[in-house]
Order: sequence, then C-alpha cells, then structure tokens
Amino acid sequence: MILIGERINAGFKDIANAIRTKDSTAVEKWAVAQAEAGATYLDVNIGAASRDPADMAWLVDVVQKAVSTPISVDSTNPEAIEAGLEAIDGREVLINSTTADPGKLDRLVPLAVERNASLLGLAMDERGSPQNVERRVENGAMVFMAAVEGGLPPDRILLDPILMPIKFMQEQVPYVLETIEQYTHLSDPPPHISVGLSNIGSKTTERGRIVRTFLVMAMTRGLDASICNVCDEETIAAVATAELMLNKEIYSDSYIRAFTMR
Amino acid sequence: MILIGERINAGFKDIANAIRTKDSTAVEKWAVAQAEAGATYLDVNIGAASRDPADMAWLVDVVQKAVSTPISVDSTNPEAIEAGLEAIDGREVLINSTTADPGKLDRLVPLAVERNASLLGLAMDERGSPQNVERRVENGAMVFMAAVEGGLPPDRILLDPILMPIKFMQEQVPYVLETIEQYTHLSDPPPHISVGLSNIGSKTTERGRIVRTFLVMAMTRGLDASICNVCDEETIAAVATAELMLNKEIYSDSYIRAFTMR
Repeated sequence: MILIGERINAGFKDIANAIRTKDSTAVEKWAVAQAEAGATYLDVNIGAASRDPADMAWLVDVVQKAVSTPISVDSTNPEAIEAGLEAIDGREVLINSTTADPGKLDRLVPLAVERNASLLGLAMDERGSPQNVERRVENGAMVFMAAVEGGLPPDRILLDPILMPIKFMQEQVPYVLETIEQYTHLSDPPPHISVGLSNIGSKTTERGRIVRTFLVMAMTRGLDASICNVCDEETIAAVATAELMLNKEIYSDSYIRAFTMR
Repeated sequence: MILIGERINAGFKDIANAIRTKDSTAVEKWAVAQAEAGATYLDVNIGAASRDPADMAWLVDVVQKAVSTPISVDSTNPEAIEAGLEAIDGREVLINSTTADPGKLDRLVPLAVERNASLLGLAMDERGSPQNVERRVENGAMVFMAAVEGGLPPDRILLDPILMPIKFMQEQVPYVLETIEQYTHLSDPPPHISVGLSNIGSKTTERGRIVRTFLVMAMTRGLDASICNVCDEETIAAVATAELMLNKEIYSDSYIRAFTMR
C-alpha cells in the first residue's frame, strides 16, 4: 500500500503560518512524524496560503532536510509543481496532480518522464468533478493513455476516482468503489489507484469509522494507494489488517507492529 | 444484511448445560439479547452436547416462547433438522445446513420446499472443506442448481463459501473473497451469500479487528448474510457503516443508532 501523508498542507493553519513566516518548525515536526509512521510519500501543498512557486520550493527543501522520505509535490498550479520538482534533491517524487485536461496532460506528462517522477491523475475534466462511474472511467482512461503514450510505465501512474463526502454525496461512494475495480482492468499490470481518503468523512460524527471502513472496502476492490492521515494508528492498523486479508502481509500475532516497523 | 445470531449453540458451555439439565434460563437470555440486538435469525444448534433430535425440538421451543425472531435450525444431522422443523410454530425458518453431498441435497431441498424454509448450503462435499476458489464455486453452484431445480427461489437460498481461520489458513481468505464475488454471478437476482464469521478470528490477538475488517471487505464483494456475534456493538456498527458505503442505508449523523433500531 502506498501511503501518502497528507499533513504538510497549507489547509492546516500551522503549515499556512510556517509558509508565511518561513518558520520551518511545524513542517519539520510533521515530516518526521509522518515518516516515522511509515509514509511512502510526504505530500507537500502550499494551497491557498501562497501563489508564489518559490514557496513550494521552500517547503520541499525544508522537508528534504528533515527526512529522506520521497515527496509528493501537490498543486493545481503547474508552475508550483515545476518549482517543487526543481527543488527535489534526486529522491523519488510524485507529481500530484494532473486532471484529464489535455492542456495539463501535455505539460505534466513530459515533465514526469523527464524528471523520472510518478504522476497522479484525478478523474476530473474541464466540466469539474465526475458524478457517475462512466465519467470517472473515461477520465481515468484518458489520463492513463496519455501517460503511457507519453512514456510512463503503468507502475508510475496513479489514478484517483475522486472520493466525495458521504454526508453530502452518499450516492457517489459506491460509484467510486465500482470505478476502482474498473481501473484495475485498464492494463496488466494495472496502474496504482489512490483516493484522497479524508474527504469521505467530512463533517460526519463517525469520521474515523467511516474513513477506515471505506479504505478496507476499497482495498478489496483494488485500491493500493491513499492520501491520508498516516499518523492515525487506527488507519494504519486497518491497512495492515486489510493487507492480511488479501494475503499481502503474512499473519503473526503481532502483525500490526510488524507492518508499522516494515 | 441478514444477521444470524450464533450464540444459542452447544459449543458454548451455558447452552450445553441448558440442554443437559433442561434449564432454559441461559437460552432465553441469549434469545432476548440477540433479538434486541437486531438478529434476523437466531441460530439454534445442539452441537456435540446431544445426539437426540428431541433436544433440538426442545431448544427451538424454548427460543420460540422467548422471542418472535425467525429461527435457523442448525445441525449436520438431518434427523435433528427434521425434529427442529417439526417444532417450528409457523414463523420463518432457515435450514442450516446442507452441503454439496447429493444424499443431503435429496433430503433437505424437498424439506425446505415443503416447509417453506430457506436453505443454507456449505461449499463442502464428501472430500471435506474446499481449498481453492474452483472447488468453492463448483460446490456452491451444485447446491444452488439442486435447490432451484427442487423448487426454491434464489432469495431462499444462502451459499456459504467456508471461511477459515486466518491464523492457520491465511491463503484461503482471498479465495473466499473471490468466491463471494463469483456467487453473485450465479443468477439474477443472486442467492444470498453468508459466512460463519467468527471462524476467521480464531486464536488471533486482534480478533475483533480481523472479524470486522473481513466482514466489510466481503460486503463490497457481495456478502449479504453472516452467522456472527450480533451482540457485539462494534460488529453491528461495522455492518451499518458498510451499508452506508454501499448506499443501502441513508446517511444521518446517528446512522448507527438508526440501523440498530430498524
């Protein structure tokens, strides 16, 4: 399972403040905490806190000095992504994200190839977020084909079917589960499949339970990546348990500890 | 979700004692507790405590006097099943179980038709428990066809792919998940699909987590029934949450309470 730590994001006040004041303390703290929790990538996102691509470079740089974990350069702005990639010190990197917009694909696919990066594609297009399975599959396939034709192997492509809050768009949740399964048939080996996990629990009273239940259900349909709160021990235990069920981790009485220490 | 309460089983000491002494207190207590927890059926099993079919009739009778919940008459011995069915007061009843053994099918399918009962079929045959997907599908299909040809509609047939302890037979777990999905393709509408849930957690340190994780993963593959500990609130909450994800229950902030009160 590819676990992308969500916490270094200017949507959180401490990170927004760090970007504004260039005080790196909070960023370093979350870089270390998420790395120790077993994150595969650390997502780095300047969000609405800044429009200056140089701030993305600063944030990437701070994280790189704190830990050796690969980085997910996360922005809707291609300039910010480029600045983040420029700052990468040679470690593995994920471009997060493109959409099924040809303008973005034409720019970000060659960039991923040139930088030896992985590329995450959201199943969105210029009409916005998909509201059914068909649009999700269409958009995902469009990203996948553009990436493969551009020279990326399937194992460096991650597709995201767009998970929505269950409280407000419940009917979308089974569509996302169905889309995940359809993505597994795109190629052999298939691309990776990822979601922004926290979205589903937005404004719910049973947030943790909802997030974890979706996660393990999606894993048996083919999900193998997630942007999530990797510091939540219950989430990690759920991933470890689901991996057992899929026979991807070997059972021992201390399998959760073994998974965390891997 | 069809929830079959597992607790009135002579594998538990208090029930074995009740059968031996004909003191109905413990049986009544568990009948009420499981009915209040929302059981669809109460499983009734004299197990190894008795070989006397009259004891099955006694147990059924005690449960029927305590609650109005439908009953699952559970035995490997067709005589005990017949005695249990004789005692049924007209309420809904499940025959638990047949296997893919022609001798059992020839006896239990006509009995189910005659008694207007549902029939649960284990994917076992005279060679014992299945060790792969193919045997599970073969045996399940054999039970399904015999039941349909004998006159049972698909919605009165439950197939059980045989869930095994993850601690000792981990490789069987993904086979069970795959088999569940294949059973959903047997007919339209498909038969119900059930497991003996507690088996998977046998002798594990993380029993509750393992049982619940399997349950919700299996539900997204097509599982819609389970023999389980219905008095465990965490199990019921997991079912309620999985039903939300599948859009089978409507989200509200108090959806778990709403599910329990249904």
